Amino acid sequence: MRTFERAVRFEEVDAAGIVFFARYLAYCHDAMEAFFDPLPGGYVGLVAGAGLGFPAVHVECDYKAPLRWGDVAVIETEVETVGTTSCTFVYTLRRKSDGVTAARAKHVTVFTEMATMTKRALTPDVRAVLDAHRAGGPR
Amino acid sequence: MRTFERAVRFEEVDAAGIVFFARYLAYCHDAMEAFFDPLPGGYVGLVAGAGLGFPAVHVECDYKAPLRWGDVAVIETEVETVGTTSCTFVYTLRRKSDGVTAARAKHVTVFTEMATMTKRALTPDVRAVLDAHRAGGPR
Amino acid sequence: MRTFERAVRFEEVDAAGIVFFARYLAYCHDAMEAFFDPLPGGYVGLVAGAGLGFPAVHVECDYKAPLRWGDVAVIETEVETVGTTSCTFVYTLRRKSDGVTAARAKHVTVFTEMATMTKRALTPDVRAVLDAHRAGGPR
Amino acid sequence: MRTFERAVRFEEVDAAGIVFFARYLAYCHDAMEAFFDPLPGGYVGLVAGAGLGFPAVHVECDYKAPLRWGDVAVIETEVETVGTTSCTFVYTLRRKSDGVTAARAKHVTVFTEMATMTKRALTPDVRAVLDAHRAGGPR
Repeated sequence: MRTFERAVRFEEVDAAGIVFFARYLAYCHDAMEAFFDPLPGGYVGLVAGAGLGFPAVHVECDYKAPLRWGDVAVIETEVETVGTTSCTFVYTLRRKSDGVTAARAKHVTVFTEMATMTKRALTPDVRAVLDAHRAGGPR
Repeated sequence: MRTFERAVRFEEVDAAGIVFFARYLAYCHDAMEAFFDPLPGGYVGLVAGAGLGFPAVHVECDYKAPLRWGDVAVIETEVETVGTTSCTFVYTLRRKSDGVTAARAKHVTVFTEMATMTKRALTPDVRAVLDAHRAGGPR
Repeated sequence: MRTFERAVRFEEVDAAGIVFFARYLAYCHDAMEAFFDPLPGGYVGLVAGAGLGFPAVHVECDYKAPLRWGDVAVIETEVETVGTTSCTFVYTLRRKSDGVTAARAKHVTVFTEMATMTKRALTPDVRAVLDAHRAGGPR
Repeated sequence: MRTFERAVRFEEVDAAGIVFFARYLAYCHDAMEAFFDPLPGGYVGLVAGAGLGFPAVHVECDYKAPLRWGDVAVIETEVETVGTTSCTFVYTLRRKSDGVTAARAKHVTVFTEMATMTKRALTPDVRAVLDAHRAGGPR
């Protein structure tokens, strides 16, 4: 499990005064990027450097409690499954102030050559990062 | 079924050059707002006027094909289920240029008094709009 | 002068409940894109097709009245000056409901080959669109 | 002068692959919020707690060099002028990797009771934070 903190920004709420529901998934993407910090150049190096990335093929999110401006989201990222070319991330978002779970999300991705948008086998360095943070402990 | 068109905006792509995955759900929300145009004052009237709304408790999205700047998303909105206090919307997003399905999404919402964030029974006018666009035809 | 209408979206307000100040400039960009609709393929054709565009070198904005969710911004776009390689757009944003001016903005751009980010002379078709909407009338 | 660092996020570029011009001002707002960290509760405490804030009445921005995903913006915030009810912030945004100036911005704000959107005199604690970071040194 890797933990990432992310303050709600002033402009990220909606007209109901709470963080816009679609933005929770943007927070998860921020957490996924931070998850790959162990790679040289991080997720930027992977995408902008090697031309590889993890576009989503499926997402799910359960909303439990609102986030508001002033809240800090603490996001725990785990890897639920790893396949030959795919990977499923799961995220738990908690409010830092009171520990309440704001949301849980699942994010199914495919390892992809971004220029052609074709899937490819996970590289060993990427797989090592994923395996180190498997749900239930590293493999 | 109600159909809503939405051009991809210049700033809505990500560093991979395709519409950011979280934004698909924002497109769905735009479509849901348009869905309620038959109400007096539309969705704005419901939320800002009556203090009622449909916050999400669960979303799912399957990504089928990328959207890019220059694409127009054609979004079909249907109501899959209606309960006493809840409603599930389903959306199909197609690229206008070639009709290819870009994504399908499910959006489970609860009818809510926004000030207190407590659920309440659907009002007859809201229920009438929902029933008119049930998947499988109006009821 | 060309006029463009743009409804405030649910997610475009900030934690103060009004449209986030930086977003006014995004609205202006939307208006600028619509301004180039007379070109074949519009602004998308120019940027994604011909690899040309109008990145900003300077912007100014005066804020006069807030925009809120439910408001529609009516944006009038005019061309203040046209040079060999540059162009200054001016925008007036009004609330559609009451005609109140919400903001005025100035947007100095340079016609640019986007791949190399180098300026170049305006092409005749682009210049023709600009000249048709000069402040004070077409030239 | 206060310094704030802000990584470009994956979704903050536009279809030209560079940070969308309007977003530079959002970065400045992030820096302004951090500027008020010395206040109890920070800028959140001021706005959400005391109902006071600094809405913009005028902004200007000069764009010098693009920011891209992978860049970190280093933002220096200074206070150019302080009046009875107003304050002008100036920001210099540099790319962390090479120190190149990406933009300079000016942000004229009015100290405002947010519920009524009426200006009011700066409070002593707010003025003290402003005075400590005046361009040319503290007063």
